[in-house]
Parts: sequence; C-alpha cells; structure tokens
Amino acid sequence: MTEPRGRRSSIVEIAAERANLASLDSSITDRLPAYSKTLFEAKTARRLTFEDIAQHLGRSEVAVAAMFYGQAQASPQDALRLTQLLGLSPESPVASQMMGFPDRGRAGPMPPVEPLIYRLYEIVQNYGYAFKAVLNEKFGDGIMSAICFNSKVEKEVDEGGAEWVVITLRGKWIIDGD
Amino acid sequence: MTEPRGRRSSIVEIAAERANLASLDSSITDRLPAYSKTLFEAKTARRLTFEDIAQHLGRSEVAVAAMFYGQAQASPQDALRLTQLLGLSPESPVASQMMGFPDRGRAGPMPPVEPLIYRLYEIVQNYGYAFKAVLNEKFGDGIMSAICFNSKVEKEVDEGGAEWVVITLRGKWIIDGD
Amino acid sequence: MTEPRGRRSSIVEIAAERANLASLDSSITDRLPAYSKTLFEAKTARRLTFEDIAQHLGRSEVAVAAMFYGQAQASPQDALRLTQLLGLSPESPVASQMMGFPDRGRAGPMPPVEPLIYRLYEIVQNYGYAFKAVLNEKFGDGIMSAICFNSKVEKEVDEGGAEWVVITLRGKWIIDGD
Amino acid sequence: MTEPRGRRSSIVEIAAERANLASLDSSITDRLPAYSKTLFEAKTARRLTFEDIAQHLGRSEVAVAAMFYGQAQASPQDALRLTQLLGLSPESPVASQMMGFPDRGRAGPMPPVEPLIYRLYEIVQNYGYAFKAVLNEKFGDGIMSAICFNSKVEKEVDEGGAEWVVITLRGKWIIDGD
Amino acid sequence: MTEPRGRRSSIVEIAAERANLASLDSSITDRLPAYSKTLFEAKTARRLTFEDIAQHLGRSEVAVAAMFYGQAQASPQDALRLTQLLGLSPESPVASQMMGFPDRGRAGPMPPVEPLIYRLYEIVQNYGYAFKAVLNEKFGDGIMSAICFNSKVEKEVDEGGAEWVVITLRGKWIIDGD
Amino acid sequence: MTEPRGRRSSIVEIAAERANLASLDSSITDRLPAYSKTLFEAKTARRLTFEDIAQHLGRSEVAVAAMFYGQAQASPQDALRLTQLLGLSPESPVASQMMGFPDRGRAGPMPPVEPLIYRLYEIVQNYGYAFKAVLNEKFGDGIMSAICFNSKVEKEVDEGGAEWVVITLRGKWIIDGD
Amino acid sequence: MTEPRGRRSSIVEIAAERANLASLDSSITDRLPAYSKTLFEAKTARRLTFEDIAQHLGRSEVAVAAMFYGQAQASPQDALRLTQLLGLSPESPVASQMMGFPDRGRAGPMPPVEPLIYRLYEIVQNYGYAFKAVLNEKFGDGIMSAICFNSKVEKEVDEGGAEWVVITLRGKWIIDGD
Amino acid sequence: MTEPRGRRSSIVEIAAERANLASLDSSITDRLPAYSKTLFEAKTARRLTFEDIAQHLGRSEVAVAAMFYGQAQASPQDALRLTQLLGLSPESPVASQMMGFPDRGRAGPMPPVEPLIYRLYEIVQNYGYAFKAVLNEKFGDGIMSAICFNSKVEKEVDEGGAEWVVITLRGKWIIDGD
Amino acid sequence: MTEPRGRRSSIVEIAAERANLASLDSSITDRLPAYSKTLFEAKTARRLTFEDIAQHLGRSEVAVAAMFYGQAQASPQDALRLTQLLGLSPESPVASQMMGFPDRGRAGPMPPVEPLIYRLYEIVQNYGYAFKAVLNEKFGDGIMSAICFNSKVEKEVDEGGAEWVVITLRGKWIIDGD
Amino acid sequence: MTEPRGRRSSIVEIAAERANLASLDSSITDRLPAYSKTLFEAKTARRLTFEDIAQHLGRSEVAVAAMFYGQAQASPQDALRLTQLLGLSPESPVASQMMGFPDRGRAGPMPPVEPLIYRLYEIVQNYGYAFKAVLNEKFGDGIMSAICFNSKVEKEVDEGGAEWVVITLRGKWIIDGD
Repeated sequence: MTEPRGRRSSIVEIAAERANLASLDSSITDRLPAYSKTLFEAKTARRLTFEDIAQHLGRSEVAVAAMFYGQAQASPQDALRLTQLLGLSPESPVASQMMGFPDRGRAGPMPPVEPLIYRLYEIVQNYGYAFKAVLNEKFGDGIMSAICFNSKVEKEVDEGGAEWVVITLRGKWIIDGD
Repeated sequence: MTEPRGRRSSIVEIAAERANLASLDSSITDRLPAYSKTLFEAKTARRLTFEDIAQHLGRSEVAVAAMFYGQAQASPQDALRLTQLLGLSPESPVASQMMGFPDRGRAGPMPPVEPLIYRLYEIVQNYGYAFKAVLNEKFGDGIMSAICFNSKVEKEVDEGGAEWVVITLRGKWIIDGD
Repeated sequence: MTEPRGRRSSIVEIAAERANLASLDSSITDRLPAYSKTLFEAKTARRLTFEDIAQHLGRSEVAVAAMFYGQAQASPQDALRLTQLLGLSPESPVASQMMGFPDRGRAGPMPPVEPLIYRLYEIVQNYGYAFKAVLNEKFGDGIMSAICFNSKVEKEVDEGGAEWVVITLRGKWIIDGD
Repeated sequence: MTEPRGRRSSIVEIAAERANLASLDSSITDRLPAYSKTLFEAKTARRLTFEDIAQHLGRSEVAVAAMFYGQAQASPQDALRLTQLLGLSPESPVASQMMGFPDRGRAGPMPPVEPLIYRLYEIVQNYGYAFKAVLNEKFGDGIMSAICFNSKVEKEVDEGGAEWVVITLRGKWIIDGD
Repeated sequence: MTEPRGRRSSIVEIAAERANLASLDSSITDRLPAYSKTLFEAKTARRLTFEDIAQHLGRSEVAVAAMFYGQAQASPQDALRLTQLLGLSPESPVASQMMGFPDRGRAGPMPPVEPLIYRLYEIVQNYGYAFKAVLNEKFGDGIMSAICFNSKVEKEVDEGGAEWVVITLRGKWIIDGD
Repeated sequence: MTEPRGRRSSIVEIAAERANLASLDSSITDRLPAYSKTLFEAKTARRLTFEDIAQHLGRSEVAVAAMFYGQAQASPQDALRLTQLLGLSPESPVASQMMGFPDRGRAGPMPPVEPLIYRLYEIVQNYGYAFKAVLNEKFGDGIMSAICFNSKVEKEVDEGGAEWVVITLRGKWIIDGD
Repeated sequence: MTEPRGRRSSIVEIAAERANLASLDSSITDRLPAYSKTLFEAKTARRLTFEDIAQHLGRSEVAVAAMFYGQAQASPQDALRLTQLLGLSPESPVASQMMGFPDRGRAGPMPPVEPLIYRLYEIVQNYGYAFKAVLNEKFGDGIMSAICFNSKVEKEVDEGGAEWVVITLRGKWIIDGD
Repeated sequence: MTEPRGRRSSIVEIAAERANLASLDSSITDRLPAYSKTLFEAKTARRLTFEDIAQHLGRSEVAVAAMFYGQAQASPQDALRLTQLLGLSPESPVASQMMGFPDRGRAGPMPPVEPLIYRLYEIVQNYGYAFKAVLNEKFGDGIMSAICFNSKVEKEVDEGGAEWVVITLRGKWIIDGD
Repeated sequence: MTEPRGRRSSIVEIAAERANLASLDSSITDRLPAYSKTLFEAKTARRLTFEDIAQHLGRSEVAVAAMFYGQAQASPQDALRLTQLLGLSPESPVASQMMGFPDRGRAGPMPPVEPLIYRLYEIVQNYGYAFKAVLNEKFGDGIMSAICFNSKVEKEVDEGGAEWVVITLRGKWIIDGD
Repeated sequence: MTEPRGRRSSIVEIAAERANLASLDSSITDRLPAYSKTLFEAKTARRLTFEDIAQHLGRSEVAVAAMFYGQAQASPQDALRLTQLLGLSPESPVASQMMGFPDRGRAGPMPPVEPLIYRLYEIVQNYGYAFKAVLNEKFGDGIMSAICFNSKVEKEVDEGGAEWVVITLRGKWIIDGD
C-alpha cells in the first residue's frame, strides 16, 4: 500500500517532534489538582521533556515530574522559572496553586494497575522485608524517610546493548524519638 | 537504683553480641517457607549479619536477605556456601528447598503495616506517575523489570552527621513484544 | 403479529450492516483516554471490524483492539494508517494522543464483572499455580513477560460443529537479574 | 575460597538430580486438599517432572499440574496410573480423594502476589476488553468457557536465542440460552 | 383532616395508572448503557409492565428486564418489536445499541445493598456448597452455565393466602473439556 | 501400556462404588461446625448420596446438603433418622449439635472462588435488577425471603441429549411492616 | 469585640428559625434518587421538622425520614399529604417517583464514616451474636425481618438531667420455610 | 417407616431438654477469649438459658450474652454469681478473665454473613441517615453512645398470632466537647 | 540565568503574601459540603490563616479548620463572626449551611493516602493497643469519646533547633451504661 | 439470694488484687511476637500496672505498653530492668527478643474493631485534614513523624467530676529533602 506523501510526513513530523513526551491521560485528571492539566498542556505545546524543565529549574527530573502531578510543592523560584519556561503568566492561579501545600497520594490506585508502577510496588512486596532486615542491621531500629527524601533515574546500557533503569532512592534515617 | 553487677553485664553482653542482628518475628513464619526459620535461627546462633553472609557468598546483602525470606532462589553454589557458613548439613532439606522455585510475594500484607516497608510503598504511591513519566521520556514505552533486577543498600552521612539511606534499584528495560 | 415491511427491513438492514461490530459501552468511557471514544465511533460509522483494521495496519487483531482501549501505543505508521482508514485528520489530536505513552490497566474493574473477561480471570485463579509449576520445570526460575508479549485469537470448529476459542499468549521469558 | 570436595559434589548432585522440579511451598498447603502434599512429596522423591507424569498418563502437563493442586478431577485411569507411577497404594485415600469433586479456586490469593501468576492476571486486566471485542466480532455474543477448556505450554527460542513462553488457551464458545 | 377532592383523585389516578410499574432510579443510570434510560422512560410513558412487553416480544419477563438493564443482547426481531411498542424510531441509536454486545455485570454493587437482591446473594452464600454437592452427585464434575441460561419468575399463593415467589433458574451443564 | 489386572479392578471398583459421592474438602472444614466432618465421613463410609439420605428423611436434597454444611437446623426427627441411617449413636454430640442454632454463611468466601458457586453469584450480579423489577411489578414493594425459603434441583435432558440444570428457588414474599 | 446589632439578629433569627432542621448534605445527593433533593429543599423552605411531617402524614418520624432518603415507598395517601404540606404540585414527578419502588441501601458507605451511624454499626458488631443467642432462645431458629419492620426514636432524660436516646426496632420473626 | 422406640425417645428427650439453648459454634471460638468456650459449655451442661442466667445475675439477657461472647466486662458480683450458677470454681481463671478489660468487636465478620445479624446491619445501612436526621432534630448535633448503652429484647404476638421481635437500644446522647 | 525583575518580585510577592496559607485541593471538593469551597476561597482572598480566624472566633484552630472541612457545626456566634471576617453576607446560604448538622467522615479515604494524615493513622495502628491498655489501667473499662472531644496543635523547638509537633487530644471518658 | 461468705471474699479479693490490670486477650496472641505473652503473664502474676513498670524503667507508660505489644524496641537497660522486675532470667530468650528489631503494625485490624481504638481512628478520619491544614500553616510543607515520636496519657477531672482523657502526641517535624 502506498501512502500519500503529505500525510505521512505530517504524522512522521508529529511523531518526531513529540518523541517521548509524557502527557496526562485525560481519565486521571480528576484525581489531580487543577494545575496539573495546565502544566502538562503547556509542556506538550512547547515540546519540553522533564529533562529540559529540570535543567531550567535546577531540580531533579523526578522532583519536577512529581510537581506536575501535584505531589511536591514548588518553591517561589521553581514557580517563577516554570511559568517563564511554559509561557504562563506569573500572576496566573497556577503559579500560586503550585506553591500551595500538596495533598499527596491520590494520583493513582493502589495496588497500581499501570504495569510500570506495579513493578515498583512488586519490588516493595517481594523485597520489603529484605530491605528492612538489611537496613536494621546497618542503621539500627528506625525507618528511611519518604518525605526527607529525593531520587533520581538513570539509564545504563550493558555490554550486550540492553538498557537498564537505575533508580536511586535516598531518604534520611529517622529513629525512635521516645 | 543499683543493679547487681552480674546481671547487667549479662544483658549488656547479649546486647553487644547481637547488636543489630535481624531475626525473624515468630508471627510471620507461617507466611514463609519452612526453611526461613531454620536459616534465621542458624544466623542468630552464629551471630552473622547479612553483610557477613553476603561477603561469604559473593552476593549482595539484599539478595541474601531475600533468599532468607524465601523471595529468591539459591544457586547450588549459594546453597553450598550458605550451609557451610551456617553449619547446616548440605544434605539437609534446607539446602534442597532453597534451590527450589520461590513462591514469592507472601511475606507481608499490602498495604504494608510495618512503617519501614510502608515508607517504600508510599514512595511508589506518591512518585509512581513521576517515575513513569521520566522513564517513558528516557526509554520510550515499556517497563522496568522487577525480575531481571537487583538492588543495593548503602549508608551516607551528610556534613551535619545525619544518616541517609541510599537504595539503588536496577532493572532491565522491557519493551512491547507485539 | 404482522409487522410493517419498511420497519422490519430497516432494522434487519441495521442488524446486517453492523453484524458483530464491537462498540464502546458509554458507561466505561470515563475510564479510557478520550481518543477511545473517537476511534470506536469512527469504526462504527465505517462499519469496520477489528479484523478489517488489523489487516490494514498489518497488526494482530488483539493489538489493534488494545490500541482502541488505550492499552497499547500506536507507532507513527499505525497512527497514519488508522487515521486514513477511519477518515480522521492526521493532524487531529487523536493521532497524536495514540502515539503517547499508554496509562494501562484501568479499562475495567478487577475482579472482572463482565462474564467473558471473568472466565479469563478464573483461568488464572484456577490454573495459576499449574502454569507456574510447568513453566518453572520447563524454563527454570523466572516469569513470562506481560509486556514483551503478544497474543492472537482464533476460531476452531470441532467435528460436532461446536465452536472453540483458541487464545495464544506469547511472552518472553525473563530471568532473575541479580 | 576452596571448598571440601565431598560437600560440593553432594550439593551439585542434589542440584543436578532435582534440576527444575516443582515442589509445594509449605505455606500454601493449608489452602489445598490434603492429597496435594502427598502427591508432591512422592513426585519429589521419585524425581519426576510434570512432563514425565503427563506422558505416563497421556494427559497435558497443565492438566496434570492442576490435578496436583486440586483444581481438576482425576479419572479412574488417571488415578490408577498415577498411583502406580508414584508408588502409592491404589487403595490409599489419595487415589479415592483425587477422583472426588474438586473444590476449585483456593490455591492462591487474587490479585496474585506471585510475580509469574500476576503477569497472567495483568494480561487479563490490560487485554480483557480487547479479547472481548475481538471474540464478540468473531463469535457473536457469548463467552469462552473456562470449564470446557484445556491449555498447553510450549517453549520457543527466537533467532536471537531468547526464550519465549507460548501458552494456548482453548475453550468452548458458550452462547446465551435464553 | 379533609383533603380537597381534586388533588386526591389526581394522586389516586397517578397511583392507579402506574400501579407497580418498575422504573429506573436516577442514581444508577451512570452504571448502565445510555439506552437503558430511554427504554425505561418510554416504558413509563406508555404505562407498560415487563409482562406486557414480554408478551409482545415473545420473550420471558426476566429476559426483557435484563435487556432494559443492558445485561442481554436484543435480536433484530426484539429490537424491531420493542421500538414499535415503545414508539421509538427503528432508526434511533437505541435500536442499534440494543443489538450491540452487552458489557455485563455493572448494574449494581456486590455484595448487593438492595435488600431484594441481597436475599438472592444470601441464598448463594448459604446454599452454594449444598447446590454444588447435589449437582455434583446428579451430574458429575462440572458447572451450571450462567450464560447458556434462562429463568422465569412466578407467583404462588398458599392455602393461607400468603404469596410466594418461585424463581426457576435453568442452565446448561458444562463439563471439563480437557 | 498394560496394567496389572488386580490394581485396575481395585481402582475401578473404588471409582464405581463412590461414583459421584460428594465429600468434604479438608481445607474448608475449619469454616464449618465440627459435626460437618463427622456427617460427611459417615456418608462416604456408607456410600450414600444426598438423594438416598433425602428419601430416608423425607426432606429435599438441598435441605439435607445444607444441613451437612451447617446451614440448616435438623429437627429431632431429622436427627433421629440421620443418626440411624449413618450408624451414629443418637446420644452422640453430633445429634445434639445438629439440632442447635446454625451459625450460617461461613462455608465459603464471597465472591465465590469455586466456579460452580460463582456462576450462581454471577446470575445475581447480572440479573439482580431484572429480578427486582419483575418481582416489584408482580408483587409490589417487598422482598423474597431467603429464610422462609426452600429450593430443589432437577435434571433435564433436551432433545439434543444435552443436560440442563433446573434450580427452583421458592421464598415467601415479605412486605413492609411499617 | 462588639458586633453590629442588625447582623447579629439576622444570624440569630436564622439560627432560631431553623433550629435543628435536618437538611441534605450536597455531597451525598448523587447516591439518592432525584426527588430527595426536592423534598429536603421544600422541607427547609417551610421550616418543617420530621416530627411536623410525621404528624401530618400519620406515620412515624423514622418512616418519613426514610422516605426522604429514598429508602421507603410512599403510599398514594403519603404522597398526596406530603405534596400538599410541602407545596409541591401533586402532578409533579416527585409525587409519582416517591410511589415508585425504592432502590434501597445506597445512601451511605459501609462501614459508615458518619460517627452517629457508626455507633449503630458498632452495636451490631459488638452485640450481634448476643442478640442472635437471645433471639434464638426466645424464638427458635429464624431471623427478625428488616423489611416487615418498623422503628421509633424517643428521648429520655434521666434523674441527673442527662439525655438518652431510645431506639425501638420491631420486626416480624421469620422462620425456615423448608 | 417405623422407628425403634428407645432411640426416638432418646432423641426426643435430648431435643426437649436442650430446647432452644444457644451454644457456641466451634468455628468461631478462635475469635473469642478462651473463657467463652468454658462458659458456653457449662451453660449447655446445666441446661440454662440466658434468661435463667440473667435472672440469677440481675442483669439483662443481652448483657449476659455479650459477657459470654467477651464483649462486656463482668463485675465482681457478676463473676461470683455466674461461677456459682455454672459450678465453676471462683478461683478458676475464668472468673478472673471475665473481670478483665474486654477486647471487643472481633466475634464475627463485617458485613455479617449470619442472616440474623445481617438483618440488623441492613437496618443500619437503610435507615442510618433516617435515624441521624430524626436524632439531630430531636437532640441537636451529637451521637448516641454505643458504650454508655444498654438494650433489651422482647417478644410480641400480634392479633393474627404472628411473632414480632422488639429490640430496644438505649444510649446516652453525647455532644461536642469542643 | 538572569530573570526579569518585575516577574520575580511578582512571584516573590505572591509567595510572601500567601506564605503558608492552607487552601482546598480542587480534587477533594466533591467529598465536602458546598460551603467548604466558599469558605476556603474567602480565606485565601483575605489572606487569613486559621490562627487569625481562631482568634477572631475565640475557638481553637483545629475546631475552625474542622468547620471549614464540614466536620464541625458552627454555632450562631461562630457563623456571625466568620461571615463578618470573610466578608460574606450573613444571609448567604453558607451561614445557614454551616449551622446545619455535619455529615462527618467523608473528607478523605481511609487508610489515608496523604502522608501527614497517614502518620496519625499509623500511630493508631501501632500504639492503639498500648493506649487501650494504659487507659484501661488508669480509667477502668470504657472509651475516650471522639465527640465530646477537643484538640490543639502546638510547636516546640528543641535545644538543637529541631521543630516538634505537639498534638493534644482531650476526650471525655465514657463508661458502660448497662 | 444469700451467698456463702468464703466465695464472695475470694472473688472480691481477686477483683481487688487485679483491679484494672491490663492483660492479653488470648485471641490476638498470634499476631504478636512470642515474648508478648510471656511479658503479660509475668505482669499479671506480679500484679504490676504499666505505671509501676514505667516508673521502674524510667520510660513513659505508653512506651512500655508498646514494648509489651511488640511495637517498640527495648534498650539493653530496659531489658535488664524489666527482666529483673518481672522475675525473668536475663538470659531468657525474652530479654534477647525484646532487643530485636520490632516488626510493627500487626497488633490489630484496621479499621479497628475495638471501640476504644476505633475512636482514635475516627479522630484521624474526621480531623485529619484539619490537622494537616493547621500544621501546614504553622510549619510549612512536611509531616509529623510517627517514628521520631513519643506520647503520654493523663487523666483530668473537670469541675463536674467528669473524667477526661488527655493524650499528648509529640513528633518531630520532617521536611522535604529534595
């Protein structure tokens, strides 16, 4: 089957331009703060990746994505730079809302139904006690904070050319205050 | 209040000797394979940490702890070295059972009720979509495997003397096979 | 009872024309991405089966249906051919959205309430450990990927004239990466 | 580190002898009929795979494994051949119990926590509606039976040497009887 | 208290006219296909019982009510006769939608909260194993189909004048296809 | 493959003798009253079907099976005849316990995991509102009692030789007492 | 702080006028039939308590409140008197809808989250078996109907001036109909 | 069928002697404190109803039954009189345990599966908001206590000879303490 | 990177002005009464903290915040002062709705997904039995009321400069009323 | 009714001696570590309250009770003093197990069924967002730690003689570490 040239290029162009741009599925917007939709739409319109935005803000990619999903508070500087980058007015309610206190934890169902997120959940399910045992032996009784916490995502390619994800979770050790 | 000397030292000695040795809570043994109990008891009796065992086996600490909780399969070499180290007979059923196929995922309830394990779950709950968005932008459509996967746990001390946990999760990127 | 001729034919015609065309139940659209509705409506309007579309796209029927339900990513070529076939503009947001990263797993409740889907769930419930035991004996420790995965559906008619469904699930074997 | 020769061979022999023999995790036996334990122990003692047993019985491997997990009824011939092969007395209660009516569906929790079984569940979750749509278009309104049903498991190796699982599900099409 | 005559008759008339006409509670319409609302409204407007409709269609009352709730597929003849009876255009989308493939099982929550429906659920809860035992003894291993299935509802009055419901469930016996 | 004659007959005899005798799965006994186990064992030992017992007691088969599962109270006459038939002492605690007040509803999980019982549950799920609508139109507002209730199970064979189950549910109509 | 006189009186007047008038929380209206909202609004506008309405209708307060929440069917006389009292047209759809068949049980979640309703639930949780034991000893095997049922609410003041609620539940005793 | 005289009388005698004595189902004992079993066994052995015991203790029947199920604390006088009546030693651990602090709420599952208890639950489900509305109008904002609470059970027989249960719940009104 | 001066100040000003003003996440408003949204918007517009409002009303901050979330009833005086402070008309429906009976408990899901609220839940989970044991020993059998209850929140700074939250819960002790 | 003197005193003495001693309900021991049972039994035998033990250990009562329920780790000094006080050998496994790492969160079900614990849960349910709002305004974005945490319980008697519980929760404020 031959395809008319114009149409192909149009799709190919779209595909090229938006290559690997995360956007917001319309069916989860009602679980997120109203500004999530605005931010994602502006990001798509400007064809920015989280890496682009993270560099502009001087934050990690995960922190920036968490901000887009309403899971992290923007500092005034974050809000200033982000509205500039996305072409939003600094007086827009989005800027102000992003600096509000996040109401976390409602982005998706638990157990997760999204396979990528489920795999992370499965790691907790299968290795939870192993992590606890090793952490207790290394640090004593306590927990790793999920609040005083940051993380990053990296790509590794092994000698066979296969890609590996490396996620680093870094949280403060909190001990019994009794 | 003064305490009789002998008793104090006895407790202090016990405390010193078993400092930070992870053991198995009796109330979860019925969710684990029978060999978990045997392995933990031998580990306690010999006062071995997972770090000690990991070095002896040439495996990561998390992998070794997962093996103790019945979440990972022991290779023949693992089983040989582990039975030696723990003073178990290589003909004992434990050796053979550890090399069986693990029936994973039943060590603890989900959502986790243990605070340390809950914090890991909370990270998935709060950052799940952020990880997905960043991973999709970096790798395209797909998932990070939780099977073709390994992890490690490290301790960092910041300039203020506070301890931080660093957990590294490393999984192969799996793409659509359609 | 006699029925006016014109009406009968009208219904019969509708019935004939849409014979066995899967459409989208209005009460599940809010769990799917917005483009699902557009795609199904265009498919109904053009009276296309998934078999027709699959042939046009050179994909399997299951993959195409999964794309319609927002469970699979369209390649640029898929998007180009599909918009052509369905008479949608390649510049339409549908084309662009279909090439986005799917947010999978939210099409229906689990356990499924739809009897056809429940039967598949019941197979997992009843035969799950049997599949695991046989797979472990054939492949060792590991899992069958549900991502690096494809499937097909065929019809068989036995000697007595009874119809049988044959579903083939084909997934890559993934092994422990530790 | 050098290891005493005798011990190594012992473990290696065990490993060799039981290579890939599925056994029964002690922590799930209370969800299965009493004969499951007896059958698995005899299978392990005789070092038989499900493939060995399936050939002896003239049944599929999945059917045999399902029988071991109490999910399928043994015919008198199955019971006769199986007790012979496993060295059990045909007068033993196991023979009689296997021919009883199975009380299905209680082998494991749903959603499954075992990763291998979860992947099958995830296929139902993600592709359930796609299977329904394609089946409805191919067969009309109805369901694929999970009772008048059989299945098989095969191994494929692709040109790159990667292993693929092929599971074939074959069920009778059942239509509305109203 | 005396009531103005006109008003009483108006209510009494309404009551008389709609005596025992089942209608659709507005708070469950979002779980049903869009045509359910249309059908129920037309039924109410024309003051038709399910018995009236069933006679016109030559179907059982339960089958017709199931069709109204989106749980059963209308044949072309059902659709033709029903649109005629309800005064709907045979070209209306309702006719076409009713002949689509039903997406069953979402009309109400399980466990049911409606007392009438809960009583049926309770029968399954309390007598489920009794039915299984008796059916297995009468038919061997297998199940009663809920798809190749029909049912009817009758009223009995005993000698004391008390009313009894008689529900007859009739389903094909399906046996293991392995 | 030839089989030694003696063994075959033994199994065949067992199979013949116990043909279609419902027994009690060991893994559900802890959800039932203690006498259930005794009754089922005596029934198996005497090779009695529920039909045999029902005739002896002058009760329906479903009522008798429900009694065995602890879901129905035995009258003194039931207890007398049943202990006679099963060879139990009328002074045994079983006789006395069967005449106690049943603690109903705990025989199996809901939603049911047993496929046969699930099909009954699915009928409630799919047809619940249809039954309610038809019953309301026939009887007015109210419910069918699940307590002042009886049921029977029959077998039908259609002209094509296929077997059909006919379950009749008969419950008193209960109306608002306000 | 001094407050302007006019405003205070206005609020005080509102407070006085609506003293203890139950109204409908906007966030639960979507679980109730549409007429609930209309009835509550008219009740608020006319400043009527359920006691006022109950007297006018000659029904108990609980029955009237249940009618407002869509849990009980209005008789033609109830509908006539209620529309008169609330100033609604007897031809309004509300009158007709109230006489329809209630779709009960969906007003609130279970377990209840409202503290007042939770306390009633807790009584069932804690005293359920005590009520069963006493009822069985007084009445034999059976249940108290929740349909052929009525209830009332009274206030008692003890000698110390403390207020006590007295709720009387009165239901017909239903016995096994087998 | 004729029955040997001796046996009949034996059963009839048992039936007569234990007429309507509530006992403890063996399958729920593990959810209750250990003394529940002892108390119920002594009650059965002495053929005492809760009415007998309540009169002896000067408590309500419901309170006494609640004590037997571990839901209420015995006063020293209750313990003294109860051990006397049941022939237990006042030094027995039962006396002491009954005076301990109850760990309430674990006697049965919620939602209840026992039909009698479910009916009470259903009353809360259907009438919860009606009770709340009426109570708020009668008492203002607050709750009825389920702790500072008592209840009684009575039997009524209506003119037609039908039996009715009357349960009276009496709880202190608790108001906001802010 | 330099930023245009005007914009920075604008953001900085916004940040300064709204420093630590709690607002309402748009995605939870549908679980709250309609007036919650109005109150929060007026609070944000006037840049008032709960401390400001609490001082104006002479109530505790927690009580005021609970009122904003629809969990507490406003007295006429509260309503008068609050409408004045927020610039709302005392005749507005908000004033009247706030004095209505709260329908409590639906603000967020349980278990909580918000990390701050989850920590409070975790305290109940981990220390629940410890609190019960200590309270029973101090007060006897009974409960602490959650209705006749108040609470306050304070900040402590320890010698190392670290901030600590001090939450004081104060509830009336309620004892058995039997 | 007169009671023999000796028995009364015996019970009264028991009651007096054990006045308000919290003990361990036998039906929850399987959710706790094995040493919980030993500790509670020794506490009962020695008639010690948590207040007694807390004074001896120099810890808060809540901390000591939490230790008994396996929710807190004992320091060597705690273990030494506690074994002395309870008359346990410092070499006993209890001493060593108490110094192990607690596996928290499994003492009771959530939502709690015990009324006292439920009231605390209800406070979180009703006031969770109010606490969050007030804490965010006082401290900024972050959480109160439930690990670096302590609490105490006090009794207040108001002017009317009514008893009030005062629970003080004190946790470190943890802020975002990103």
